[in-house]
Amino acid sequence: MSESLVIEKVEQAVGILDEVGIDAWLTFVRETTESGDPMLPIILGQPLTWPSALIVTRRGERIAIVGKYEDEAVRSTGAWLEVVPYVEGIGEPLVGTLDRLAPGRLAVNYSENDVKADGLSHGMMLRLRAHLAGTPHADALCSAEPIIASLRGRKTAGEIARIRAAIEITDAVFRSVASFARAGRCEMEIAEHMRGEAARRAATPAWDAAQCPIVSTGSDSMIGHGLPSPDLVVRAGCIFHLDFGVCLDQYCSDVQRAWYVPGDGESAPPPAVHEGFEAVAGAITAAAQTLRPGAQGWEVDAAARSALTGAGYPEYRHATGHQVGRAAHDGGAVLGPRWERYGDTPTRSIEAGSVFTLELGIENLDGRGYLGLEEMVLVTDDGCVFLTERQMRLPLLGETVGRIC
Amino acid sequence: MSESLVIEKVEQAVGILDEVGIDAWLTFVRETTESGDPMLPIILGQPLTWPSALIVTRRGERIAIVGKYEDEAVRSTGAWLEVVPYVEGIGEPLVGTLDRLAPGRLAVNYSENDVKADGLSHGMMLRLRAHLAGTPHADALCSAEPIIASLRGRKTAGEIARIRAAIEITDAVFRSVASFARAGRCEMEIAEHMRGEAARRAATPAWDAAQCPIVSTGSDSMIGHGLPSPDLVVRAGCIFHLDFGVCLDQYCSDVQRAWYVPGDGESAPPPAVHEGFEAVAGAITAAAQTLRPGAQGWEVDAAARSALTGAGYPEYRHATGHQVGRAAHDGGAVLGPRWERYGDTPTRSIEAGSVFTLELGIENLDGRGYLGLEEMVLVTDDGCVFLTERQMRLPLLGETVGRIC
Repeated sequence: MSESLVIEKVEQAVGILDEVGIDAWLTFVRETTESGDPMLPIILGQPLTWPSALIVTRRGERIAIVGKYEDEAVRSTGAWLEVVPYVEGIGEPLVGTLDRLAPGRLAVNYSENDVKADGLSHGMMLRLRAHLAGTPHADALCSAEPIIASLRGRKTAGEIARIRAAIEITDAVFRSVASFARAGRCEMEIAEHMRGEAARRAATPAWDAAQCPIVSTGSDSMIGHGLPSPDLVVRAGCIFHLDFGVCLDQYCSDVQRAWYVPGDGESAPPPAVHEGFEAVAGAITAAAQTLRPGAQGWEVDAAARSALTGAGYPEYRHATGHQVGRAAHDGGAVLGPRWERYGDTPTRSIEAGSVFTLELGIENLDGRGYLGLEEMVLVTDDGCVFLTERQMRLPLLGETVGRIC
Repeated sequence: MSESLVIEKVEQAVGILDEVGIDAWLTFVRETTESGDPMLPIILGQPLTWPSALIVTRRGERIAIVGKYEDEAVRSTGAWLEVVPYVEGIGEPLVGTLDRLAPGRLAVNYSENDVKADGLSHGMMLRLRAHLAGTPHADALCSAEPIIASLRGRKTAGEIARIRAAIEITDAVFRSVASFARAGRCEMEIAEHMRGEAARRAATPAWDAAQCPIVSTGSDSMIGHGLPSPDLVVRAGCIFHLDFGVCLDQYCSDVQRAWYVPGDGESAPPPAVHEGFEAVAGAITAAAQTLRPGAQGWEVDAAARSALTGAGYPEYRHATGHQVGRAAHDGGAVLGPRWERYGDTPTRSIEAGSVFTLELGIENLDGRGYLGLEEMVLVTDDGCVFLTERQMRLPLLGETVGRIC
């Protein structure tokens, strides 16, 4: 828990409310340990048990209404200037507080498009509406999506430093696995080795441990979000591919790297594999050249997608990039095609300070398995910079460690 | 991840659907790593990235509609007999599947009262309604609360064995801390010691680690869900109290234990402390004697509450018990007063096979700190049995280890 970061982000929210013209922002939660609002770790850094209301206003008020017994812990964060404990029910103190604040627009955390802005459960929305029935606040409700997109998206210097630290550990784990993985090792033992290397550096898997890393040893491996197999092993003549990220100090990385496993006498990847690698890396370059503040995600996606298909490869069936921060898949704008499953996230305006992945690949390239790359970039005022040291060539597995980049 | 338990619970759901007269149960989720539906670990045991639908019917169909790239992992659980991958959007395969199933009542996971049955976010409810607009399924929607309450509540033999294993580790940690904690040790180092002892046994804290254990060394400690302090130390003449639970193999414990810290020459707790302890233990006995299938939670709560207040102690401001299982605070019926904050959970019928805590205490007893106990019980066909070895006397801190019970 970093209390200074919580204070920093809650203060940042006040300015964003003013920018987007919303008077008050209400995060309304209960029993958050297992099913909490994704905003809670950012604006509180603690779980809450009973129905609780965290209210930020554009005038700068920061009010927490929480169950008795949790008020002291909430006060100790320093982020919430007024902490109101209650015993029997939150309805009365909540409505009383809103009466005093009289917000014309009251944003709450729901969104059809952005899961990180959708932390309000449907049952809690029904409870909230019941509390507000007959008050003017019922008609003031609106979605907090624009607030949350900017608050999660615009990284502070402290947040970027943490993401860089997570990437450094990821790189170290990739260097380690490049010497550990060799023909005959199974996917599962490679995954265990990587998780162990991360744990030794006090980092945890950036997503569900069973699928982090995703390990691919050739054309028989599960594609995409699959499970490392105990039966599939690294084999000569195949592509060895990893998708891995770590969480360190609550911030994440998400990176893909690939190697070619040489057969006897092979000193370089086969030409078809080499060409596929160049096409993938080139498509990522095309995305990076398009990514800048004000661009929309689908434009960045289209640049990469058409670069790859223009080189004669099949279209990949996922977005070219997503934001990274507190979560490996963070919220807000997505660098994706305008498909139903991405909602309106590909048409959002890109903001400076956002961190994105750029990721794509080719399934079963030359019959040798999945070849994909994933880099991480920071959007600057006029473009983007790579946070990862880019993989610009496809090394042979077993080459001297550290030469992948 | 235990695949056999996932299969067992999904199969159990079919029978419960039939009992409660609901034709189909839909769990509708996306990006579940951080903010998932609390049912997902029980019925799938894996995260899902894109909008996904898990459908169980009373006829026994078990259908998963998931994004391409996640279908193989879902299929590998063995719990979902039909797995439908999609690429662009879930709307069409979802509506097509529902057309085929034609459920008269279609339950989804929302509840005003029960957080474990409220995993559907408001934004996902809006998306679902948009998908179903103009179909008969829109009017078939109802709450899955009764299904979830029974599915989480009724523990299988495998689930009870896991809870017992978590309790055993909790007991071992309490034995260890009884010799580690001594006058002068601060709350924070005691908490660290306990988390370390749990980790050594491959268990994790049952709730947010910063508050697990809750450590109280006297009247200056935070009451309830507070944070262990680096400044407050175990002191002679005070009550030393711990609230701790572990999660092992995905199942939890939640137990409170207390000691008296003797001053020079003291060989027993002061009479007022002894009497307070007897009143707390007696109130827990009163609750246990009332707990049986068909009883309502508020009746059990009232038995304990009136036993304590009848003995002349102030009323505690929380429920007497909650369910324990996958989460330390599991869902369904609560053994609590009919206060607004507990919704209708205190008026639910208690079911056999449920595991509850029985917990209560006295704030600042005799000016010496919080004295509370928390036991765990299993509801049987005609009453309940204790899963914890009850604490029936208040030992002196520093007595021979293992004599607390």
